[in-house]
Amino acid sequence: MEGPGNPGRFVTTEAGPSDDKAGNSCVDFPVAVVLPAGGTGERTGLQTPKQFCTFLNRPLISYTIQAFERVPWIETIVVVISEESTDLMTDIIYRFQHRKVRVVQGGSTRHRSICNGVQALNQGPVRKPKVVIIHDGVRPFVEEELLYKITMAAKEQGAAGAIRPLVSTVIATTSEGFLDHSLDRAKYRASEMPQGFLYDVIYQAYQRCSESDFEFGTECLHLALQYCGTNAKLIEGPPTLWKVTYKRDLAAAESIIKETLSRSVCIIAGGSAQATALADALQQAMASLDMVQELDIIPDLMGDNARCLSRDWNFVQVSVSSPRPCEVEAIIRALEAAERTVLHPAVLVWVHLNVSDGPFISQRREETAAIAELASVAKSRNVLLYGVRLHRSQEAASWERSVGRLTEIISALIRDRSTALVGQLLQA
Amino acid sequence: MEGPGNPGRFVTTEAGPSDDKAGNSCVDFPVAVVLPAGGTGERTGLQTPKQFCTFLNRPLISYTIQAFERVPWIETIVVVISEESTDLMTDIIYRFQHRKVRVVQGGSTRHRSICNGVQALNQGPVRKPKVVIIHDGVRPFVEEELLYKITMAAKEQGAAGAIRPLVSTVIATTSEGFLDHSLDRAKYRASEMPQGFLYDVIYQAYQRCSESDFEFGTECLHLALQYCGTNAKLIEGPPTLWKVTYKRDLAAAESIIKETLSRSVCIIAGGSAQATALADALQQAMASLDMVQELDIIPDLMGDNARCLSRDWNFVQVSVSSPRPCEVEAIIRALEAAERTVLHPAVLVWVHLNVSDGPFISQRREETAAIAELASVAKSRNVLLYGVRLHRSQEAASWERSVGRLTEIISALIRDRSTALVGQLLQA
Repeated sequence: MEGPGNPGRFVTTEAGPSDDKAGNSCVDFPVAVVLPAGGTGERTGLQTPKQFCTFLNRPLISYTIQAFERVPWIETIVVVISEESTDLMTDIIYRFQHRKVRVVQGGSTRHRSICNGVQALNQGPVRKPKVVIIHDGVRPFVEEELLYKITMAAKEQGAAGAIRPLVSTVIATTSEGFLDHSLDRAKYRASEMPQGFLYDVIYQAYQRCSESDFEFGTECLHLALQYCGTNAKLIEGPPTLWKVTYKRDLAAAESIIKETLSRSVCIIAGGSAQATALADALQQAMASLDMVQELDIIPDLMGDNARCLSRDWNFVQVSVSSPRPCEVEAIIRALEAAERTVLHPAVLVWVHLNVSDGPFISQRREETAAIAELASVAKSRNVLLYGVRLHRSQEAASWERSVGRLTEIISALIRDRSTALVGQLLQA
Repeated sequence: MEGPGNPGRFVTTEAGPSDDKAGNSCVDFPVAVVLPAGGTGERTGLQTPKQFCTFLNRPLISYTIQAFERVPWIETIVVVISEESTDLMTDIIYRFQHRKVRVVQGGSTRHRSICNGVQALNQGPVRKPKVVIIHDGVRPFVEEELLYKITMAAKEQGAAGAIRPLVSTVIATTSEGFLDHSLDRAKYRASEMPQGFLYDVIYQAYQRCSESDFEFGTECLHLALQYCGTNAKLIEGPPTLWKVTYKRDLAAAESIIKETLSRSVCIIAGGSAQATALADALQQAMASLDMVQELDIIPDLMGDNARCLSRDWNFVQVSVSSPRPCEVEAIIRALEAAERTVLHPAVLVWVHLNVSDGPFISQRREETAAIAELASVAKSRNVLLYGVRLHRSQEAASWERSVGRLTEIISALIRDRSTALVGQLLQA
């Protein structure tokens, strides 16, 4: 039930802002997106409308915008917002460097807002799109493959929409609050987003629809059917299309985002044989965890290894005996130069491997101070820096336990991305 | 839209296993529960069926059972499971000390399983209930108030069920996968659980229904209507009634459970004036956080203060200058004696307040070793022990920063309940 292409593989179907490619996505006509984001969020029970709730210090709407911005054949994203959010939205576009966005002011209802967005695509400098995709600001996990299917079906049929099986039985109620009848679940579907339309179809539908549609309606597919005679093609999407509606959905969205960001780990081991041996042991231990899907060991970030900076990797720097802050500073600078921390904070775990039985105590005090200081520099550059101390025991069982603890600690730091714990020096 | 009684107050409506009381819950007839828990969990994409997925080391089904077990007027909970889960379920009942549960083997479909559960209530030592509540093993957050409403409505009307507004528009599809028509959202509701029935109504309905109902049906309210002519009373429930269906729902459930367990903090300050001053500063800083709703400062757990052991409090022990493990050991023993860790792990943060400029370094090594050792003892008793070190600066600004960091760290430890970080000595 996870969606057709991916039976049983969870990570793919509940994927977050991944960089998947739809292999066949050759779209040779202009496509634009209308993203209504004017909701008040009353159903979450929170002060902040949910499209502006932040995950890892970034508002939900920015994740949704990014899901479309990374698709090369999408030209323009019209974000429709309420007047009071204009400054906030301008700030978000600037901070997260969104490049395809135009902001349009919404109306008093959902349909009026979408209609404003659709009309804006026929004005000014933008070229009128062939197909317009309508989505929701609070459905951040839409993938290119589905956008492609919706777009092509919309071009051929005039309209297309994503659907999901119903989770609950739907029932009709009497006016007194009693059961009238229940619907046969097999014959119905939940209508989700995205939906796609030939521009002229949705434009005409809004020209022709009634005040009552504008006031009380919510379903664009219905307008296309009623006012243009267009029966939309329905396409089953993955469960991640769900709409962030209640407060619990914020936790669910955060967990998907964190899971996506925890998949890749890059261990920088320097030239030391001892660091490399630890990196190998870590690699083996982490392979048994569900969380990590790729793990690379590199000596440094020079030359070809700089490729690790271009994607959402998490970094583990292993330093032997006398940890030098300059090694960590160099990584922070490299992350900043590669613009790797614009969208998400990067995680950097600095592992201190003590191989001598030497001046254990006094060193620790220096290390504690050094890491706390570095962490505050790192934080200002959106890098979450944590330290872990590890003693190279000569006894095999004890060493194995330490590596096990180190694996557990690193995994927890990467997965949780706690800002409260940056700058701590933990003990494995 | 958060549910009638609690406009805008999130914590109450998405509350987890709380100890709320429905003020008017005087039920003077026998009530039993049937809890189908035989699902295979295919929609989560995980190996483990979702009712057995664990949160804080405890399976979801145990949370659901507890939601009913804490209601004094519910006598019996029949959990219907598949044959292969019998041993697992027996172990869960033993480990989490469930007292009202009877296990019954399920059938090949949902209705066959529920029917087995209903019939089991008319056999053997159990007295036949007047009203039977049917729920789901994977809806853990049901509160007494709603159970009361459903039960009373079922007694009066013969049947009652919880409903929620539809989140998505429901559409009818053609056999070729096109939109046929969309339903007017205002006229329909999602049918949720719990549902309640006069025992004789649901029993008769299952006696009379067809093989096809048993094979393909899912809705008990429908059977009561069709075979007993009983129109169920519909009662709007809170959003937390949702059914854990997809993997993201597991994260949402975990977040609600953790939020519920993070509300109350008890600071044990001993007799020292310095510790009490820190406790006061912490109290003030934590009051500004959304997370904590009650915070008590007590000198110890003696006498009347032992009341803090009887509920889901989190503990902060403040020790001045030379932290003595015996103080922490005593708390762990008290938690165990009060059976406070049967259902959830308890969090205990041990704060070391260093007020001298004395032997800073050597002490730290001892503290690190002491806390790591204590933490492993604590863990075996289901207590998560963490340490935080804090230096009493004479400079006001520096002291304020330290208290701020301490607040942040304690909040994160309580909220995240990370097992990977137990036994660490952090620095505030």
